[in-house]
Amino acid sequence: MQTVTADSLTRFIRRCLVAVDLPEQDAQIVAELMTEADLNGSDGHGVFRLPQYIKRVKTSGINIKPNIRVVKDKGAMALVDGDDGMGHLVMHRGTEIAIGKAAEHGVGWVGIRHGNHAGPAALYAKMPMRHDMIGIYIAVGSANHLPPWGGTELLLSTNPIAVAVPAAEEPPIVLDMATTVAAYGKVKTAAQRGEQMPVGWMMDKFGNALTDPTRAAEGFLLPIGGAKGYGLALMFGLLAGTLNGAAFGREVVDFNADSRSPTNTGQMVAAVSIEAFMDVEEFKRKVDAVIRSMHASPTLPGVDNVRVPGERSHMIRVDREQNGIPIHPGLEEKLAELSRQLGTKGLFESP
Amino acid sequence: MQTVTADSLTRFIRRCLVAVDLPEQDAQIVAELMTEADLNGSDGHGVFRLPQYIKRVKTSGINIKPNIRVVKDKGAMALVDGDDGMGHLVMHRGTEIAIGKAAEHGVGWVGIRHGNHAGPAALYAKMPMRHDMIGIYIAVGSANHLPPWGGTELLLSTNPIAVAVPAAEEPPIVLDMATTVAAYGKVKTAAQRGEQMPVGWMMDKFGNALTDPTRAAEGFLLPIGGAKGYGLALMFGLLAGTLNGAAFGREVVDFNADSRSPTNTGQMVAAVSIEAFMDVEEFKRKVDAVIRSMHASPTLPGVDNVRVPGERSHMIRVDREQNGIPIHPGLEEKLAELSRQLGTKGLFESP
Repeated sequence: MQTVTADSLTRFIRRCLVAVDLPEQDAQIVAELMTEADLNGSDGHGVFRLPQYIKRVKTSGINIKPNIRVVKDKGAMALVDGDDGMGHLVMHRGTEIAIGKAAEHGVGWVGIRHGNHAGPAALYAKMPMRHDMIGIYIAVGSANHLPPWGGTELLLSTNPIAVAVPAAEEPPIVLDMATTVAAYGKVKTAAQRGEQMPVGWMMDKFGNALTDPTRAAEGFLLPIGGAKGYGLALMFGLLAGTLNGAAFGREVVDFNADSRSPTNTGQMVAAVSIEAFMDVEEFKRKVDAVIRSMHASPTLPGVDNVRVPGERSHMIRVDREQNGIPIHPGLEEKLAELSRQLGTKGLFESP
Repeated sequence: MQTVTADSLTRFIRRCLVAVDLPEQDAQIVAELMTEADLNGSDGHGVFRLPQYIKRVKTSGINIKPNIRVVKDKGAMALVDGDDGMGHLVMHRGTEIAIGKAAEHGVGWVGIRHGNHAGPAALYAKMPMRHDMIGIYIAVGSANHLPPWGGTELLLSTNPIAVAVPAAEEPPIVLDMATTVAAYGKVKTAAQRGEQMPVGWMMDKFGNALTDPTRAAEGFLLPIGGAKGYGLALMFGLLAGTLNGAAFGREVVDFNADSRSPTNTGQMVAAVSIEAFMDVEEFKRKVDAVIRSMHASPTLPGVDNVRVPGERSHMIRVDREQNGIPIHPGLEEKLAELSRQLGTKGLFESP
């Protein structure tokens, strides 16, 4: 498998976005965030999504010159209208505002409407850490694959949450999770590979376990913890969608099936200033101690060691910073096709 | 089964607390919140806990004249030291501060340290709704029954979250959930009744399903969604415990086994002003529409209707406001014993 450096990947993504008329500076921000996703091992949420984003731009489902603006502002909160711009660009702006709010008011909470799919949730939960803040991010997912508990209508998405907490000597703890047992991307991957799914991922409308991923359209994802995961997905939808005047429930546009309609994607990001609560270094040392206590736990038979959230992603990042980001042959072909269409240099053509 | 009115129950709890020297006004606040728990159907978190609280007061594990004070204050955040006072009293103060912060800054986030067990999480998530705010509450549980995922050491509790969102004509949506499949109270109830537990509630240290509740001490609770529920419990512990300088992980005191040591319980409560985001009535109508869309979903075979979180609790409350709060015979005997010890009038002795 070929690999690319983070720099090469960023330049490639930027070239493609500029080719469809995104301003240079905006293209750079998006390209860096998408590359960050690949560096961290979120392979289904980085450059993998570029053809889909470009398609949306071409069909005007994404606005390339958005007027991203604060429409409500009160002390520690702001509501940002992304004007249907690239999701990463809107979220980057929103998170910067949340960080500024937290610096001034201890806590910052920013709601987004008229955003778009913005890659992995962890990207925006992690940004506040650079300012010694804890980050929290919640999003309304971009397609409904989850019914309310006991029901069969697809009214909810996998509405994810990410929380990032910095440590001192240890890597930060970064949780990034869907409220469903499996993300829908895993179902697609199983279908591509001709594999069966484990019981517990999906159910059909008659209440039977659905294990054949080619029959995914006949059923739905299952929430974590049954009614609890449904409750979380519902609350996250209200907080990140409804409260911001963004789409939720029946209003959600399936961005896989429809690349033209604005999605009115809703997200929320919060930044919490550690300094407002206690000495930053003391806090980080305490987080180190928590991490080490988890690592020191005896394990169940067959388990080598206990991890904290974000640990696997951190190891992948260390490896990819040194050895490059692997590009699967199927993806390589798709990206080559994309650059031919756009008339830009390919991923492996330019240093 | 005998029933009592909410008023009678409040007066009984207040009498008992005053008998162990809580100031009248503080006893009233705690008694109202505990009664609220029983009204809402949180039978394991209302007057059921009174004997345990009184025992803690008598052994000085709870400070009856606490100096509850704000130790950090910055814009939208505050950190409250509860001085080991009754958990309800500390949380009531903390939530009032969060509401005041949200009224001024759009959002309020209050951390608690040196609190105590404060009853069901929903109590404090619901308080902001009276001010047209959304409430969020997270707590570090009062005993560790959960290991990190893959591990066997009891480093985590069932760390719960509650979120309350007001509606217009429909009852509010109120999520109140542990991050474990079953709360530990359910295990105790199964043991009392001589019943087996379903597979999935608990596991022993060898990785086998544990279904005999009398063997609970040999194993541990399981988190919702495996590693995901572990991740949530860990993050909630960092946000509600570590960040506030409260106990988390190995520092947590098992309040069932030890009634003397201060628990340094940590909690966090946030209030979000709806008005800062959009017209309050418009928001509530949209929440109504979300609730009705969930209710309208076709159901799985064997399921009568889809509910939203808090719906069952709301129905119990309507019933109990009209017909009184049922007191199980076993609890009635314990409360009679308590009032004899304290030399106060019993629950059914005084109007």
